[in-house]
Amino acid sequence: MNKIITIGRQFGSGGREFGRRLAEELGYEYYDKQIISEIAKKTELSEEYVKNVVEKEPHQLYPITIGRSMFYSSDYEIKQIQSIFEAQCEILRELAEKSNCVIVGRCADYILDKFNPYKIFVYASMESRLNRCIERNENVNLPLKKFKKEMEKIDKNREKYYDFFTGRKWGDKDNYDLMVNTSNCDIKEVVSVISKLFK
Amino acid sequence: MNKIITIGRQFGSGGREFGRRLAEELGYEYYDKQIISEIAKKTELSEEYVKNVVEKEPHQLYPITIGRSMFYSSDYEIKQIQSIFEAQCEILRELAEKSNCVIVGRCADYILDKFNPYKIFVYASMESRLNRCIERNENVNLPLKKFKKEMEKIDKNREKYYDFFTGRKWGDKDNYDLMVNTSNCDIKEVVSVISKLFK
Repeated sequence: MNKIITIGRQFGSGGREFGRRLAEELGYEYYDKQIISEIAKKTELSEEYVKNVVEKEPHQLYPITIGRSMFYSSDYEIKQIQSIFEAQCEILRELAEKSNCVIVGRCADYILDKFNPYKIFVYASMESRLNRCIERNENVNLPLKKFKKEMEKIDKNREKYYDFFTGRKWGDKDNYDLMVNTSNCDIKEVVSVISKLFK
Repeated sequence: MNKIITIGRQFGSGGREFGRRLAEELGYEYYDKQIISEIAKKTELSEEYVKNVVEKEPHQLYPITIGRSMFYSSDYEIKQIQSIFEAQCEILRELAEKSNCVIVGRCADYILDKFNPYKIFVYASMESRLNRCIERNENVNLPLKKFKKEMEKIDKNREKYYDFFTGRKWGDKDNYDLMVNTSNCDIKEVVSVISKLFK
């Protein structure tokens, strides 16, 4: 069976850099944003729409309760969201069957359970995450307070999406094999050590 | 400044083995249970009593509220508990000033904050922790259900003691640099890799 490493991550913690470097060190395939494009192809929905569902507006996942009845925004919408998740499952399983790989996000730790993945969660303090984004010139034109709120919103949405589809709790230590705080470390150095767990 | 590594751990997760092996790999001093003896010497209290306060009955730490007033079990008792914590702080600081070391438990991550310790938390699933205790022949004469309750009680007390004195949350990822789940791993192998973070 191929070796699969999944990376969950807080926004701005360097989780993607962690995953990319880990894949490089190990000579594994690396999958991240391109999974969105694959889902879009499979579902014939636009990439923007898929990205929106997967990363930005999972509140649509939760039904509205009126009296004793529950409603989703629309039946059509919920079917699309489900079909996106199904496509996501298929794509991830195809990738996992193809070769050793590192997969960032996308509930891969849950979806690929039967592949017995090694599950890593990468996180950092808010201060460190803000600094990291500033260094990387990401959205620096936003006022700091607004940017912080934006970061919190992205993570909240990741959490909602993950919790909804997996029934697990995003970022809860029990779901991971290793949790790495990148606040006070050099990701390159840490990855070069951690990669030895898989050699 | 000396290099200090602190290990927080769930009961039965192998945190002490992790710490001991890490100290061996690095040639650092290793401190664990002997801190209790040192506290007993410093406070002139019995080792049994100190152990009881530090590990077993931290409910004494919490005041009882009657009407609008708060009471501790007795003034004498709370003074002893405080003097134990103060002795613990002094001893840990002395050890940290002496040489590089690995310290298991004892709120060392908080007490030694100014030494900038590397903070590890070791945990595992309940199943894995139970198996570990059975393998090590610890309290195996207790019925399984009772033993499980005993484990949960020990961890609950560690949590209360830690949270009370540090104002932090025991086992919360934000307080640690690295969290290692030992459920599916060989501690010896993992430590031999992780130790390279400090070389």
